[in-house]
Amino acid sequence: MDDAQSTIILKPIGIVRSEIKPPPAERRDWWKGIVSEIVIDSSLTEALDGLEGFSHIIVLYWMHQAASGKLPLKVHPMDRTEVPRQGLFAVRTPNRPNRIGKATVRLLQRQGNILRIEGLDALDGSPVIDIKPYLPGYDSVADAKVPQWITN
Amino acid sequence: MDDAQSTIILKPIGIVRSEIKPPPAERRDWWKGIVSEIVIDSSLTEALDGLEGFSHIIVLYWMHQAASGKLPLKVHPMDRTEVPRQGLFAVRTPNRPNRIGKATVRLLQRQGNILRIEGLDALDGSPVIDIKPYLPGYDSVADAKVPQWITN
Repeated sequence: MDDAQSTIILKPIGIVRSEIKPPPAERRDWWKGIVSEIVIDSSLTEALDGLEGFSHIIVLYWMHQAASGKLPLKVHPMDRTEVPRQGLFAVRTPNRPNRIGKATVRLLQRQGNILRIEGLDALDGSPVIDIKPYLPGYDSVADAKVPQWITN
Repeated sequence: MDDAQSTIILKPIGIVRSEIKPPPAERRDWWKGIVSEIVIDSSLTEALDGLEGFSHIIVLYWMHQAASGKLPLKVHPMDRTEVPRQGLFAVRTPNRPNRIGKATVRLLQRQGNILRIEGLDALDGSPVIDIKPYLPGYDSVADAKVPQWITN
């Protein structure tokens, strides 16, 4: 695993501007309906051209307020202690070896280097790593199965 | 944009083992049906517990063979010269400021620290950055719109 042992360096392409500043109280779906902005580095403005044609985009961002250092490998999903501990790769906890968040959000408006979006679960000040167009045929699955604890 | 100007360091959690070694010839959907493996660092094996309950997972990986350095900000999507150049954030080209690929794949089997998967568009040796469970209600959009050049 030589390749995997080397480190990778990212340079943020922008930043999240949101009214959500502290980590919100534990509540499912708190981000629904939240409108926020992504400010892309102005040197990359042109790289957003054409994004307006998509209703939804995928945002990869750095969960800068998540825990770092040594992490528990198994956790109760969303602090639901009635659910047995799951491996951290089986849940969406921000406390991960590489704290990258992946959100699919509605693109309300693009104005120059600013994207106005709805439904982003990132805190104010989160560095943005990548923006990708959401492609239904590639990014969604028609027949996906999830364990029972997800839907309970 | 103070936060955005700092760099972020990732440490791969594993590596892709695939029969796809050179970048494949330009063809849409070449990865469909491809079965490959992700070998997770053995210190993180326990963090995969519970992933078996999901039919699909999201893989974030480093596109190590993509171009680096100074990139064109606009490109013809998939080298389709009949389509006007689009900003690189409006297409899924691997040649991006941060070369992170995001794929949704079927999880065929988990055996210890090895995930056997179908439909990953990563080349052999790609460092893996994160594994997340695919959550239909969070990761898919029912009414997403895309520009006409996508479907033509």
